[in-house]
Amino acid sequence: MEACHGHGKEKESQDLPRVLLFKPPPDFHLFGDECFSSNKFKFLKAWESPLPLDQFLKTHAQSVEAILSSGGAPVTAETLRLMPAVRLVMTTSAGLNHIDIAECRRRGITVANTGNVFSEDVADLAVGLLIDLLRNISASDRFVKQWLRPRQAAEGDCYSLGIGSKLGGKRVGIVGLGSIGSLVAKRLDAFGCSISYNSRTKKPSVSYPFYSNVCELAANCDILIICCGLTAETHHMINKQVLSALGKEGVVINIGRGPIIDEQELVRCLVQGEIKGAGLDVFENEPDVPKELLALDNVVLSPHCAIFTWETFKDRQKLVVENLEAFFSNKPLLTKIVDND
Amino acid sequence: MEACHGHGKEKESQDLPRVLLFKPPPDFHLFGDECFSSNKFKFLKAWESPLPLDQFLKTHAQSVEAILSSGGAPVTAETLRLMPAVRLVMTTSAGLNHIDIAECRRRGITVANTGNVFSEDVADLAVGLLIDLLRNISASDRFVKQWLRPRQAAEGDCYSLGIGSKLGGKRVGIVGLGSIGSLVAKRLDAFGCSISYNSRTKKPSVSYPFYSNVCELAANCDILIICCGLTAETHHMINKQVLSALGKEGVVINIGRGPIIDEQELVRCLVQGEIKGAGLDVFENEPDVPKELLALDNVVLSPHCAIFTWETFKDRQKLVVENLEAFFSNKPLLTKIVDND
Repeated sequence: MEACHGHGKEKESQDLPRVLLFKPPPDFHLFGDECFSSNKFKFLKAWESPLPLDQFLKTHAQSVEAILSSGGAPVTAETLRLMPAVRLVMTTSAGLNHIDIAECRRRGITVANTGNVFSEDVADLAVGLLIDLLRNISASDRFVKQWLRPRQAAEGDCYSLGIGSKLGGKRVGIVGLGSIGSLVAKRLDAFGCSISYNSRTKKPSVSYPFYSNVCELAANCDILIICCGLTAETHHMINKQVLSALGKEGVVINIGRGPIIDEQELVRCLVQGEIKGAGLDVFENEPDVPKELLALDNVVLSPHCAIFTWETFKDRQKLVVENLEAFFSNKPLLTKIVDND
Repeated sequence: MEACHGHGKEKESQDLPRVLLFKPPPDFHLFGDECFSSNKFKFLKAWESPLPLDQFLKTHAQSVEAILSSGGAPVTAETLRLMPAVRLVMTTSAGLNHIDIAECRRRGITVANTGNVFSEDVADLAVGLLIDLLRNISASDRFVKQWLRPRQAAEGDCYSLGIGSKLGGKRVGIVGLGSIGSLVAKRLDAFGCSISYNSRTKKPSVSYPFYSNVCELAANCDILIICCGLTAETHHMINKQVLSALGKEGVVINIGRGPIIDEQELVRCLVQGEIKGAGLDVFENEPDVPKELLALDNVVLSPHCAIFTWETFKDRQKLVVENLEAFFSNKPLLTKIVDND
């Protein structure tokens, strides 16, 4: 029997279009280097070269047709200037704040993100952080596990944990009713929460009350969930005034991006009891987490891992490879932000 | 101006019907003794008497017309025998496993619980424990807060936490599709989970797949959520065979009662990796929590506090008082389990 040689003659590896990677994406740690592999393109791994980055980029300037950015390494105007052959910037994230979108547009470079592949996981974590916070789950778990006398833990000493708050009937304000925000709303609807939202414009197809002003939204909510992207307009949008409008009984959940909140002000409000609590997956100066938060029981922290599930890593790998293959086959991309076809 | 003296001449305190309390309910700690007060009945607080309990009961045998049981102190046939004037046993819990229902029925004693007043809180905690477990929220919070180098916590070291599992698409088996189980189903529906259930009988109005055998349910599920009451039939219903059918990737959530699960077997399965994880609010020998669980990261523990929210405590107080007042006014009770009118 003759061996099968594939569906046709593939290009030799050295002829394949080059996709630049600045840093290994988390997937490489978890699934090995082959997780994004394809016979339609070849990765150029900057971190494997002994050359300093600028020299490395100059060396490969003419051959790199696409960049796969996995966060951590920003794609600046300067980077793009060094690589005139780049026609696509694909990012493994949903967020685009590390890419100079305006410059991509100016240069006719297509930009693609991972679309909504993470949205469900991020929405799930938002709801998880909220229930955890309102019902003291992390604090309870820590309490039971650290308690030297478990005899008392299960008895009545959970009074010392503080009683929780009921989800049903809470007024939830969603900041940014995009893919993630809508999924958060759908989930919290099922818990009997009352939803309203703020976004750039009112969504005609949505019946939840709309507030054009985030401060007004905060004043009419018990819980504020930050689901928008980070842009010049949303930077420090959740400031002293908004937190003050939310008030002493208010709770903030952030699964968007750290700098959307004025973190220094948030920490002050949490420490001084000017708001009730926070569930945070993102921070203003990652990887730093404000030290003041580490001792607080009214704060639940996770290390920017809203998208970290096995299922979604796999879905993302499939999407990244399919998008790159589509691009190099002159087929329409599955997800696309800046279209320069 | 003349002071208002109420809506009519109330009975003198000493003439009011007596309601026996064995132990102070948690509400007394939180809201003070007056939280259940009424001008229609008077509490007899066993713990305030210097007499031993049996002597105290004998002393008041003829005057006690109702018992308000708040868990912890079982209402046995022996207790009831000592107090022939009792016509109502009201419990501040939804569960009835501490009351000898058969004996109440035999003696013509009405039994009332708090109905569904807790159901939403309990369902919320079930979902909270599940998301917490699948998405490592308590473990993340502990990790970030205990991490001596927060710089690394938010960066990439969450790989060491293990990646989570996505909720969407998971097959959830609900054991006991009563008030709580139905609310859990409604919530998890919104996360894209696929629901099936086991209960004594198939519910004609429910479209979720029904398994008459809990082992068969476990074999067809990724997640088993215990929402049933504790009875002779459900004691150790979740045994070695069921856990083995659930399998290595399976997760158990218990917000019902501890002894529904064979805890020794559950601990063994968790320690040996024969199931993947557990979220437990209840334990077989409360207030004890098995020591082996305290060191496990694949287990989220809370100290039997599924009903602990301010809102629900207030709702329960209202219900208890209204039920007792209705009883002594010969009006229909709001919630009732054994009806002997």
